[in-house]
Amino acid sequence: MAKQHLETSGAEGSAGEAVAAYLREQATEFLRSLRQHRESGGSAPGGTAEEAAGAARALRRSARRVSGTLHTFRPLLDPEWSDALRPELAWLSGTLAQEHAYAGRLERLLSALHRLSGAHAVPAQTPAAPPGRVGTAQLSRTENTASGNLTVGAAKAGALLERQLTLARTRAHSTALQALGSSRFHAVADNVAVLASEVPLRATTADLDALAASARSRLAEAVAALPLHRAGHPYNAEALVQGLTADTAPPSQDAPWHHVRLLLRLHRYAQEVVPCGPGTGGGPADAETEAAAALDRHRDAAEAAAAAAHAARTPRIAPATAYALGVLHADQRHDVEAARFAFQRAWLKEAVHTT
Amino acid sequence: MAKQHLETSGAEGSAGEAVAAYLREQATEFLRSLRQHRESGGSAPGGTAEEAAGAARALRRSARRVSGTLHTFRPLLDPEWSDALRPELAWLSGTLAQEHAYAGRLERLLSALHRLSGAHAVPAQTPAAPPGRVGTAQLSRTENTASGNLTVGAAKAGALLERQLTLARTRAHSTALQALGSSRFHAVADNVAVLASEVPLRATTADLDALAASARSRLAEAVAALPLHRAGHPYNAEALVQGLTADTAPPSQDAPWHHVRLLLRLHRYAQEVVPCGPGTGGGPADAETEAAAALDRHRDAAEAAAAAAHAARTPRIAPATAYALGVLHADQRHDVEAARFAFQRAWLKEAVHTT
Repeated sequence: MAKQHLETSGAEGSAGEAVAAYLREQATEFLRSLRQHRESGGSAPGGTAEEAAGAARALRRSARRVSGTLHTFRPLLDPEWSDALRPELAWLSGTLAQEHAYAGRLERLLSALHRLSGAHAVPAQTPAAPPGRVGTAQLSRTENTASGNLTVGAAKAGALLERQLTLARTRAHSTALQALGSSRFHAVADNVAVLASEVPLRATTADLDALAASARSRLAEAVAALPLHRAGHPYNAEALVQGLTADTAPPSQDAPWHHVRLLLRLHRYAQEVVPCGPGTGGGPADAETEAAAALDRHRDAAEAAAAAAHAARTPRIAPATAYALGVLHADQRHDVEAARFAFQRAWLKEAVHTT
Repeated sequence: MAKQHLETSGAEGSAGEAVAAYLREQATEFLRSLRQHRESGGSAPGGTAEEAAGAARALRRSARRVSGTLHTFRPLLDPEWSDALRPELAWLSGTLAQEHAYAGRLERLLSALHRLSGAHAVPAQTPAAPPGRVGTAQLSRTENTASGNLTVGAAKAGALLERQLTLARTRAHSTALQALGSSRFHAVADNVAVLASEVPLRATTADLDALAASARSRLAEAVAALPLHRAGHPYNAEALVQGLTADTAPPSQDAPWHHVRLLLRLHRYAQEVVPCGPGTGGGPADAETEAAAALDRHRDAAEAAAAAAHAARTPRIAPATAYALGVLHADQRHDVEAARFAFQRAWLKEAVHTT
């Protein structure tokens, strides 16, 4: 199918060529990361887990960029072909992200528990460490200095979270390995290989800048719908509202922020394709990086808070453990609010530069 | 003894006279409030609990002012006499404050639980309501809309706090009534009655403005020792550090802020004596009121957080109750941090006006 469209792609001009060049570059990077992952990780004896994790990260990075570019510049590309590939890329990067996410979540929660327990050292855990190797050494330290049952509660909460998230991480690791060996994955890799040599463009008069500008205005609209005014007032206590009602993990108030996170990502990938697109004067890049980091932090804190709430619903836990998990949940929701504040600040800077 | 000093007080001039006028005024107010309290509250059949609470508040208000003035302007007064009266006034206002404090703490915690449970209405409880009348009606509402055991946890946590703090309040009420009927209290009232007619001044060259300025500089020094820079960065997460270690209620990090609260109060009373004292140009009064309100909020939130932590150590509570109390504790520590931020902002304004 790609072939057929390539034959008719003589008229697309430089707009299509810019997108094609970017997609070729990302597809090549995808294939390189895949090779590296096969050589270093999984079942290969020579590689280290860190190398495998690095390769998986690079693989996800390029998969996200290919998928985002297919979305934003859809009118320049064979729609049927790219509409078929995008969900497959999302499945792949989602599956590969899980292991890393569980490791990061555990690290975040243990680090918060240490802060809450007054331990000064933060566990020096690498999210890339293979599952099962995460020790309880750090937590037992707090138990030694325990001055009351609340600190024992923190240690027990840490052990519980470690058990639950390490199990989830191990499962995610197996799922990722299975995915990388599946025929579904090989079909994705084949399609990306097509992109690396011949991007399926189509004849169109669509304008590159206009498409990048659309990505930007979708982002701006979604940001305008956020409760930014409230977020700009520190300590508004918004993130904990209904913190004791939710039986389902992420509160609905988080959803618009998660959505903006995805739209900001799409906008940033579009900027990579059209470096001097609308609104880029060299200034806002830093503010955008800051805004993106704030939304990553928002997502991570929200998921960590949900994991603490989830752990608190484990049957037969001690009240002191549940109490510590409650404090931890609220602490992470506090960080959700802090991330919104940080985003609001970064976005103001961004707006100053571009308007 | 007062008489003897009054006889030698011809040389003290207008400095002593300004203090004496203020003390007479506050002592008169004290005696008026006391009369009102006897008429309305306690065992009198005609009065309402609200009137009694209002009178007790006015009594504490003037007791604090008399005590603060005796402290700040000590060189102008008979030292032996005022050194003997001050701890007695502190005992009195401390004893009378307890009932009100427990009522306010319960109201604050229930209101926070409602916010955390997603209930929109805040319980319309008056802290002045007599003990035992605080109902559980508000909390059962959250139980009706419960979507999971966490909301049941919030309802149970609310019921537990209500039980504990209502008991504490009832005890404080009895203690206050006993205190008001004690010979110790009658001795205090007699001494205040002396103040209302003849303030025991002593011959001195001490300067009124210099004494007020000293109160101000003691405050400024204590504020300079606060971690204001950190407090000025919102979401620094400082107030929850060691939130899971403390077996004793108020963390040591709160103490310097509580100390500043008392010094700010002394400074403000000194300003009432010397209205045009150093640093008052008409501007900073609002900022000072704001700063004082922030430190009251700091104290209230810290004590509410401690009450939640204390309730969590009740034997045989359900994990869901303990979890809700953990969230509530962290929420109140969050408000401690917010109050520090508010104080820092108000203090900056104050500094702009006076330097």
